[in-house]
Amino acid sequence: MDKQQNILIIGAGLCGSLLALRLGQRGYNVTVYEKRPDLRKVDISAGRSINLAFSNRGIKAMKLVGLEEQVKALCIPMNGRMIHDVKGNTFLSNYSGREHEYINSISRGGLNALLLDEAEKHDNVTIHFNKKCKSVNFEKTTALFKDYESKSEFVEDADVIIGTDGAGSSLRKSYYLGKKFLFSFSQDYLSHGYKELSILPKRGDDYRIFKNALHIWPRGSFMLIALPNLDGSFTVTLFLSYDEGEYNFNNLNTDKKVLEFFKKEFPDALAQMPNLLEDFNNNPTSALGTVKCSPWHYKGNTLLMGDAAHAIVPFYGQGMNASFEDVVEFDKVLDANLGNWEAIFKAYENSRKKDTDAIADLAIDNFYEMRDHVANPIFKEKRKLEMALEKQFPNEYASKYSLVTFNEDLDYREAMLKGRAQDKAILNMLSDGDIDLNDDLKLILGKVQKETQEILEKDKIAGLK
Amino acid sequence: MDKQQNILIIGAGLCGSLLALRLGQRGYNVTVYEKRPDLRKVDISAGRSINLAFSNRGIKAMKLVGLEEQVKALCIPMNGRMIHDVKGNTFLSNYSGREHEYINSISRGGLNALLLDEAEKHDNVTIHFNKKCKSVNFEKTTALFKDYESKSEFVEDADVIIGTDGAGSSLRKSYYLGKKFLFSFSQDYLSHGYKELSILPKRGDDYRIFKNALHIWPRGSFMLIALPNLDGSFTVTLFLSYDEGEYNFNNLNTDKKVLEFFKKEFPDALAQMPNLLEDFNNNPTSALGTVKCSPWHYKGNTLLMGDAAHAIVPFYGQGMNASFEDVVEFDKVLDANLGNWEAIFKAYENSRKKDTDAIADLAIDNFYEMRDHVANPIFKEKRKLEMALEKQFPNEYASKYSLVTFNEDLDYREAMLKGRAQDKAILNMLSDGDIDLNDDLKLILGKVQKETQEILEKDKIAGLK
Repeated sequence: MDKQQNILIIGAGLCGSLLALRLGQRGYNVTVYEKRPDLRKVDISAGRSINLAFSNRGIKAMKLVGLEEQVKALCIPMNGRMIHDVKGNTFLSNYSGREHEYINSISRGGLNALLLDEAEKHDNVTIHFNKKCKSVNFEKTTALFKDYESKSEFVEDADVIIGTDGAGSSLRKSYYLGKKFLFSFSQDYLSHGYKELSILPKRGDDYRIFKNALHIWPRGSFMLIALPNLDGSFTVTLFLSYDEGEYNFNNLNTDKKVLEFFKKEFPDALAQMPNLLEDFNNNPTSALGTVKCSPWHYKGNTLLMGDAAHAIVPFYGQGMNASFEDVVEFDKVLDANLGNWEAIFKAYENSRKKDTDAIADLAIDNFYEMRDHVANPIFKEKRKLEMALEKQFPNEYASKYSLVTFNEDLDYREAMLKGRAQDKAILNMLSDGDIDLNDDLKLILGKVQKETQEILEKDKIAGLK
Repeated sequence: MDKQQNILIIGAGLCGSLLALRLGQRGYNVTVYEKRPDLRKVDISAGRSINLAFSNRGIKAMKLVGLEEQVKALCIPMNGRMIHDVKGNTFLSNYSGREHEYINSISRGGLNALLLDEAEKHDNVTIHFNKKCKSVNFEKTTALFKDYESKSEFVEDADVIIGTDGAGSSLRKSYYLGKKFLFSFSQDYLSHGYKELSILPKRGDDYRIFKNALHIWPRGSFMLIALPNLDGSFTVTLFLSYDEGEYNFNNLNTDKKVLEFFKKEFPDALAQMPNLLEDFNNNPTSALGTVKCSPWHYKGNTLLMGDAAHAIVPFYGQGMNASFEDVVEFDKVLDANLGNWEAIFKAYENSRKKDTDAIADLAIDNFYEMRDHVANPIFKEKRKLEMALEKQFPNEYASKYSLVTFNEDLDYREAMLKGRAQDKAILNMLSDGDIDLNDDLKLILGKVQKETQEILEKDKIAGLK
């Protein structure tokens, strides 16, 4: 296909800037419009998800664009979850029984800046800031922008428009409001919202709590988590119901109540957060939603990618990884030389949508698992058993978490099907006494594999997905 | 609660008119606004779903309002599916092994007219036609209407507004566009659309094909169905992909192609349809979609019911039945005297939403089952076995279809869970040779019950719904 084609990308967030870089590397003429100011010049974090979990699928994308080493410098490895109980006791639970498998904490801003810098090194890539897309005419392949600086509006024309403009995508909104074709769409909110807080460095850049872990204070129907930053601070996130339970976002409306809540539920965290009230009062409470839609593309004119196509809740730490994997998968489809954009977009959605649907559902599963199951004795036994299996049989066994997080060559849907069947097998065998933590591990492995296989076959025969 | 409260109902379709009647019977002041003309005076069918499948859950609602006998006169019993193969051979497959279990074909217009007549007998119920709701201010509990006759707009105030305005509900749209609260919402379209056709009476009111059946011409990826009307005609519906397969709605664009398609696929139906081309060209092709949303209510001010809250695809014949059951369930909650509308709406949604979600999913299941599984030998064996079990053990066995259709005191969600587990048990046991159609039926029943129970327990332990 003609490499001189003009591609317009809406949104220079993580997905858009990676896509611009990759398409630039492939020789397309790429123009990117971003509504926010250039984050390399202005601090625009404003209390929302300033760091993220970064793992194998994301790293695979960095390899594709040749940035693996540069990204490493931005990463803080997290080998496991550090669980904090209500008395302040801590317990480290590794993410995998294999030593080399861990996830990373990474700064959204730092990573985004790196991708923008690299994209702009290509003469055929241009990035404009402070230009908000108001709507897309997907029949004419034009987009209407408002320039926040000059206050004027202008229309841009392109051969192809790709919307990587996040969960509130203007391209997706144009699909929905346009009513020119049957557009399936869902937005699903959890009953919980989130608020970002922080643990500041001790002095200089010393970490106040253990650096190399994702800290969790699980409390049944709510929880607090913390991820480390390079400057010695932690970004802390409170997940809490809007209106249910003794304490919720609606009734935590005085400093006294906020302090009372933290003193009761998170005393050890509170001791490290002298700045709690300032953060709590200044930072917004945000919603947790899942967005799915289809089709992602209109003919060969326009395409949704990243959160614009599939926004997910953060409980699997896969949001950014999934969006980066989009670019890897799109790149593969480009390699297939299908000859026209409509065929490319169709092939991409056909192979990709089942996987982004799967990670969306897995992330919801994990919300309930973390909330409701974390205290369940059989779930704890399962986790212990799986760590032992992964350690003893690193090549033969991978938990659902590992399949999703560390097996970047297995697609999300396969990881979901196998992981769920495996969980079901182990939980039922533990519950029935068919396996026991004291049994020989080799024997257990065989039983788990056999039962998992049977579950998958029975579902298949019943016509269940 | 004060019975003098003013309740405004938007939409006088099947759900709205039944609700108006019931709330009128309970003594509320009810005002209904309907956008269409009065269907008792004007023919407004315009080629869209003029008859419907009516079964136990709907009948239960008619009992509630004392109309069971009057509705019977409108019903044509359908004891089973009359399957037509491509050579014109027919085969009757009963809906149940129990003689007294059948579904009915009923005219939408006739039923709606009866409900309107009965509602208007109450002095405290007023129904206005030709008044379209444009939006609802759910914070002020007011609705904006356009009068199609005078062309003027006016605002109505009420203590409570209930939207029974169907799949395209204006109240639901106001929730969505208002962005005043987190509104979860989905619209999901199938790849198939539908078009209504007809088989006219032979002469006078003689039926051209067997009267007491739901006729099906299943053809794998598409199908034709026909339901009888009181005047001797049948309403015929073609379900077909928009753009896939050799024949689809997009490429059936000449009379020649339409005739070629029917001659090849439905020759015996075509022989009864001299009016095919006229119907095909005059009637619209419509989409098949599922709508789910939550919350249904805003505080104690407004509530969605019927299709406005949960539009489903027609493949289980439960759309109207589910909407009528809404009114029965809402009536039960009113009986509980919760004291204020917010508590009533909350209790109603809490108990009801899981069931309307279930029937929506069951209806989608049936789309795939009718399309893909109808020709599968194991599915056919299962159906045969289930008919035998229902006949021999009328009180001990009910198929998924029977649980959903004929067990009106079992809620949809329970029917779904049990029915799916039962299907899975039978399909797997047939596939594994654990049961055989020649075995003793008592033995088979025991095995099916045991395996079904095990499946349900295993899902429960694994935390699956």
